[in-house]
Amino acid sequence: MIDPPSLVDQYCHGVLRTELGLGTFEAQLARTGGPPAPGTTLFDTQTGFAVRRWCPPLLGLEPHCPPARYLARRRELGVAETGRRLLRASGITTYLVDTGLPGDLTGTAELARAGAAEAHEIVRLEQLAEQVADTSGTVESFLANLAESVHGAAAHAVAFTSVAGLRQGPALAPQPPGPGEVRGAAARWLAARRAGDELRDPVLLRHLLWTAVASGRPLQLHVGPGASGTRPGATDPALLGGFLRATAGLGTDLVLLHGYPDHRYAARLAGIHPHVYVDSGASLARTGAGAATVLAEVLELAPFGKILFSSGARGLPELHVVGARLFREALARVLGGWVAEGAWALDDARRVAGMIASGNASRVYGLE
Amino acid sequence: MIDPPSLVDQYCHGVLRTELGLGTFEAQLARTGGPPAPGTTLFDTQTGFAVRRWCPPLLGLEPHCPPARYLARRRELGVAETGRRLLRASGITTYLVDTGLPGDLTGTAELARAGAAEAHEIVRLEQLAEQVADTSGTVESFLANLAESVHGAAAHAVAFTSVAGLRQGPALAPQPPGPGEVRGAAARWLAARRAGDELRDPVLLRHLLWTAVASGRPLQLHVGPGASGTRPGATDPALLGGFLRATAGLGTDLVLLHGYPDHRYAARLAGIHPHVYVDSGASLARTGAGAATVLAEVLELAPFGKILFSSGARGLPELHVVGARLFREALARVLGGWVAEGAWALDDARRVAGMIASGNASRVYGLE
Amino acid sequence: MIDPPSLVDQYCHGVLRTELGLGTFEAQLARTGGPPAPGTTLFDTQTGFAVRRWCPPLLGLEPHCPPARYLARRRELGVAETGRRLLRASGITTYLVDTGLPGDLTGTAELARAGAAEAHEIVRLEQLAEQVADTSGTVESFLANLAESVHGAAAHAVAFTSVAGLRQGPALAPQPPGPGEVRGAAARWLAARRAGDELRDPVLLRHLLWTAVASGRPLQLHVGPGASGTRPGATDPALLGGFLRATAGLGTDLVLLHGYPDHRYAARLAGIHPHVYVDSGASLARTGAGAATVLAEVLELAPFGKILFSSGARGLPELHVVGARLFREALARVLGGWVAEGAWALDDARRVAGMIASGNASRVYGLE
Repeated sequence: MIDPPSLVDQYCHGVLRTELGLGTFEAQLARTGGPPAPGTTLFDTQTGFAVRRWCPPLLGLEPHCPPARYLARRRELGVAETGRRLLRASGITTYLVDTGLPGDLTGTAELARAGAAEAHEIVRLEQLAEQVADTSGTVESFLANLAESVHGAAAHAVAFTSVAGLRQGPALAPQPPGPGEVRGAAARWLAARRAGDELRDPVLLRHLLWTAVASGRPLQLHVGPGASGTRPGATDPALLGGFLRATAGLGTDLVLLHGYPDHRYAARLAGIHPHVYVDSGASLARTGAGAATVLAEVLELAPFGKILFSSGARGLPELHVVGARLFREALARVLGGWVAEGAWALDDARRVAGMIASGNASRVYGLE
Repeated sequence: MIDPPSLVDQYCHGVLRTELGLGTFEAQLARTGGPPAPGTTLFDTQTGFAVRRWCPPLLGLEPHCPPARYLARRRELGVAETGRRLLRASGITTYLVDTGLPGDLTGTAELARAGAAEAHEIVRLEQLAEQVADTSGTVESFLANLAESVHGAAAHAVAFTSVAGLRQGPALAPQPPGPGEVRGAAARWLAARRAGDELRDPVLLRHLLWTAVASGRPLQLHVGPGASGTRPGATDPALLGGFLRATAGLGTDLVLLHGYPDHRYAARLAGIHPHVYVDSGASLARTGAGAATVLAEVLELAPFGKILFSSGARGLPELHVVGARLFREALARVLGGWVAEGAWALDDARRVAGMIASGNASRVYGLE
Repeated sequence: MIDPPSLVDQYCHGVLRTELGLGTFEAQLARTGGPPAPGTTLFDTQTGFAVRRWCPPLLGLEPHCPPARYLARRRELGVAETGRRLLRASGITTYLVDTGLPGDLTGTAELARAGAAEAHEIVRLEQLAEQVADTSGTVESFLANLAESVHGAAAHAVAFTSVAGLRQGPALAPQPPGPGEVRGAAARWLAARRAGDELRDPVLLRHLLWTAVASGRPLQLHVGPGASGTRPGATDPALLGGFLRATAGLGTDLVLLHGYPDHRYAARLAGIHPHVYVDSGASLARTGAGAATVLAEVLELAPFGKILFSSGARGLPELHVVGARLFREALARVLGGWVAEGAWALDDARRVAGMIASGNASRVYGLE
């Protein structure tokens, strides 16, 4: 009844090119700080159960079959054929791909080919700065090359993204740092760093965020709890609030990613600030059978023109499938339920479904 | 099955006296920091959909009709007749009205006449202080007039309310500021302010809160995220916790308003502190088809004798209607569901519905 | 369809040995900062309604009978017989009992006899330190006796628990305090304290937490809002995050208790840190008819092997019953619903139900 014809996945990563065993596959099912606790497995998670529900039938097996059987079939088909079958069954017609992760992951063009879909690059600001640092000899050349790189990326990338920005509170100060402050920070960072070191300096992260804002390209901010589960700037009033107010009216859209479990809070921000948008998808793949609850909560306060779908998938094409299927099913259930009880008109529900599935993303990212 | 006969709206505002076009009407559907983002409309929100569901039939149109058609019918009837029809269909029999907002809004008596209901005034502390400042020549006369104004307001108003109090963390210190501190803050504020300036000084806000507490009238505190979406004192342990403990046993009730998305947290505070109550209504008009979920969450931890209904409506009589209808429907669904599954007895459910709809407010505010 | 045969209650207290009147019984239904507000009763809470639903039939009365009638029947049977009937109908086969509360509560062995079940002791670190302080003459003997007491408790207790630890932010610093720091804090605390004083010194609490971690016994941390409803360290990134990272890989499991209303956040931490587990039960007795919602939220992000049941009951055997019944019912409804809609396989649902009900606790606490 409510089933959008196509999906724009506004935030995902490529898939691993290597064959996976049970253990290496399992390790991709969650972002954890180590191996599963003794006596537990990451297959016993909502993501694991969702993969076992949706993916075996796409490879010719029965739903919920045991992980070992699924992995055997996966190896039988080969990683490339498995990826093609899964991605093409996801219903995603456009992927926006954050290519700034380490590991042997498919890039934008390769993902597009495997999925028989469009794909566009999202540039990760921290990684771009690290690459520029690796190839710049002096502070002056680093800063000049950085400005040029962001400018150049804005010409071909569909968006910027920053993960560390919100995890370093001071990076969110409501104005760009001064030139002297930036030079000083760059000098200290370049002197201390070794190739491969991650950028965590708050002054340079702040400089990066404001450089990206100046480019006019949409900027995706990761607002959810960090890798250690700590609460980030998203919930610190003095930080995110000030940054959102300071960037209003500059013509650059901000997209809040990964807000769970503070997604209602992120949705509210999208309702308050005209230039702020909210992701509704990435947490669905994590919450599995609970996805409809989470989606309904995002739909409480975010204006419907401000909500975007993503799979948030990384490493496994199974995660693209699961993100897309859970989203479609949750959308149909939540919106269909509201239609059934008379709260929404069916035409409105279909229109809103199309907006969240692809329309809003097409407008915000300038896709045709 | 569960339908309370009357509602006391414990927190709302008046309605606009001017005729509204599509754009001016839309602007009242949400509190945003600017015009809707390009390509979006505030009609595409839960509030917009709820207005289109409940209000057109009250003006002789079909539910969910297009906004333009609804606005045309509204102008045809005129703003006064529209207001009467809508307010009288809301089921609200008593309005408690915060009159401290700017704009051409109906006052207490006018809202009562339009709605054929009772109405009582809630005095907004910040506005009262600003008015006193506008007419006081010296620090001494300002402080004396302020004390007299709060005292006078306590004699005729049904409650006090403070919006800025919780958004200025230091205002929540667990004891009143000393006389010298207050005089110094008043002198600085009066010297710097121009007519119309808002009160944001934390010492004066703290002085106001404690003066209001001393009056014995219930004090409504706005605990939700502020206009920019930033998290307020409600979630800062060192602040709100200390204030609630410090005001226990003084004989003055505190009512927490606008807690969403931290309404579970506000509900919990109402369960812990005997003098603390929690609003269950204002967020329902904002969350529309999701209202039953939010109401059920407030009902998790708040004692049923501590929960109060409000519409939180402002500017449009449509918002009073929507607040009341969504509340009634959510109440019937949530409590009715618990009765159906045997968790609650029907008699209890009806009794609790009456308490939340009007009984608790009548007791707390001393309505007959 | 989904009904685990036995429950391990991983966190509860004993029950009162004295006969209770209406008022003394009511006072046990919630943790409040004073008597109920005028015109309200703690029977009008989710816990009160849940007690009236589940307990009267176990004493031969109809469900939802008036409190006075229930209390009369309770006195007729006597407190001992009432306790036996209720506890034996709870379905709990093993109790883990925090014995560190004041009041005339049954101990571990007595609870086991009354409930015809197993019972094991959980040692509360703060109380242990206070007892050692009461009987130690010097700083040196206090610290030596404390070390010996923790070591001794680890030999017979099934776990340690700390309530104050997380409510004193600095206690969560990511490394143990140095010996000089501990001696200084102990000297100051011992000099100032009078017998019966509670331990609140952050350095000593930190010393206690790290001493407990070194023992290898699971350590239960109370992460929910404190007695005054203030938000604790659980949501402060600099504190809990650092402690969890610092204790990873040491071989000691941490169990997060009482996370509501931040239970999704606690569940997420259990998903990130291999040595962190999350309680799913204690808040169910508080949220009553809303228990299925809360349980489903815990199940969103916590791996199923990391979730443990508890009643959190204290003082009244009614609370053990209610905790257990609400858990079973919520589990059957949530998991059964997911099976019915095809999201989960029935075998998986039964397996996960058994893990949460008893299997995970048996593994973590080393029960047979």
